[in-house]
Amino acid sequence: MDPIRIAVVGVGKIARDQHLPAIAGNRAFGLAATVSPHDPGVEGVPHFASLDALLAGGPAVDAVALCTPPQVRYDLASSALARGVHVFLEKPPGATLAEVAALHSQADKVGATLFAAWHSRFAAGVAPARAWLAERRIDKVEITWREDVRVWHPGQAWIWEPGGLGVFDPGINALSIATRILPRPIFLQAGTLEIPANRAAPIAADLQFRDTAGAPVHMDLDWRQTGPQSWDIVIETDAGTLKLSSGGAVLTLPSGTSHDEDHEYPGLYARFATLIRTGQSDVDIDPLRLVADAFLRATRVSVEPFED
Amino acid sequence: MDPIRIAVVGVGKIARDQHLPAIAGNRAFGLAATVSPHDPGVEGVPHFASLDALLAGGPAVDAVALCTPPQVRYDLASSALARGVHVFLEKPPGATLAEVAALHSQADKVGATLFAAWHSRFAAGVAPARAWLAERRIDKVEITWREDVRVWHPGQAWIWEPGGLGVFDPGINALSIATRILPRPIFLQAGTLEIPANRAAPIAADLQFRDTAGAPVHMDLDWRQTGPQSWDIVIETDAGTLKLSSGGAVLTLPSGTSHDEDHEYPGLYARFATLIRTGQSDVDIDPLRLVADAFLRATRVSVEPFED
Repeated sequence: MDPIRIAVVGVGKIARDQHLPAIAGNRAFGLAATVSPHDPGVEGVPHFASLDALLAGGPAVDAVALCTPPQVRYDLASSALARGVHVFLEKPPGATLAEVAALHSQADKVGATLFAAWHSRFAAGVAPARAWLAERRIDKVEITWREDVRVWHPGQAWIWEPGGLGVFDPGINALSIATRILPRPIFLQAGTLEIPANRAAPIAADLQFRDTAGAPVHMDLDWRQTGPQSWDIVIETDAGTLKLSSGGAVLTLPSGTSHDEDHEYPGLYARFATLIRTGQSDVDIDPLRLVADAFLRATRVSVEPFED
Repeated sequence: MDPIRIAVVGVGKIARDQHLPAIAGNRAFGLAATVSPHDPGVEGVPHFASLDALLAGGPAVDAVALCTPPQVRYDLASSALARGVHVFLEKPPGATLAEVAALHSQADKVGATLFAAWHSRFAAGVAPARAWLAERRIDKVEITWREDVRVWHPGQAWIWEPGGLGVFDPGINALSIATRILPRPIFLQAGTLEIPANRAAPIAADLQFRDTAGAPVHMDLDWRQTGPQSWDIVIETDAGTLKLSSGGAVLTLPSGTSHDEDHEYPGLYARFATLIRTGQSDVDIDPLRLVADAFLRATRVSVEPFED
């Protein structure tokens, strides 16, 4: 089979750290081009200042991976789908739920693949956690996602602007895992968002969800964590406690701990290739819907200004 | 056919003004009970302080109409569905999107009807507007929804609290109409929410949507309107201008103006009866999703405190 000719759009940190290596490491793909108005491209690969320029006059591409901020992603995705080009959406898949739904309809209509990628779902501990929980009674879930925004998102202004998610940018990873491993849907009951006085998006959140059987799911998000970082989900069940830590990489069950190599982005690209080869889309909106629900439902509190 | 035995839960203004008369006027239904912890019931009809009390020891009911504030609706709906009782949800159908999705799944699982009611869609001009627009090119949409909250929601504190929608409580009616009559989906691009300094929910909003063909859809919501009230949607097309006014009751096309009798709630109950008789649900979340997108995506501005 010929490799899928793919262009990476938005050549920032996530593209260089994750997408380009994952594409280089997967023989189903060939990097055909890069696109960015500001960033340089990759040695030896055609580079374009815009997706329109690539689609109009560049080498043929079968697929694009959109690694731009979510606020500009709809038009890029829609242009690509309009030409039957498959689309990989970095998380979050869009700035609004409705635009993602519209892209999903468009993809179905033109017969192209749309993949809303949730990289944390491909962390090593997630699939075994899901399997272990499937038959358990869930008594209580505690999600703790505390990291230092200055370390992980230095100077990324868009993340604080309307349509950026603030602390939900990492928090949505936790929600992508929780919605994958828990056997029942969850929904928000109450919560608090802490918004710096000089920013539009929250720097911390405390959220009370429950599942449809009534089990409480508490989520503690904080971007002001210095020192040790926490990306943990602890689930109490009738068969003991499950703990997923390090963002899903380390799984501790009553029977012991396992820790496999990271393969999140390789896993995503393997999945994207399968979706393209089988003519399917995978657009799970649940994590972003829970974030939208938090913006809709939670109480906002103004906290001290945040300066990078 | 025996009438559908229905209980009205939450006997406030909307129940007395609309639900009870619509039920009384539809022979498919018989009012079996009312439920409210504070409000009195209806002369000659069994009254209960809670839905649990009704379901445990009251007369048999086939259906319930939930007219409570949205923040408490999930548990009521879920208890009813768990017993196979059909559920009519007043708008908005819930305080979050995820809880409505969970109820929809539950209804499908137990084979009961769930109806997320959008009363404005049953305004007289809506169906003909939809038909007229189906084949038109949409150039521009202007939605103006300006009313006086002191007149329409006197002392309704819940509407200002987290999970209440503020000015989107009427605004969601406009969105329910727009999403019904426009031939293409719309999504939010940018906007501003004005939040009184002493409240959690917006008193005004200015939102820029577009449809998937690129037509701009502007929405102007304001709850501070004294004097004449506006509930208008004006749509410019390649065949002239359509105007829906008075909340959908009056339709003006290039060929003239029509104004039929109000039949919103009778229309809703006729639809609910059909859904029950045919074993279907109707849970369109689009209007609430657009509101959640506005909370997620729009810029917030603090404005002067609002006192009832």
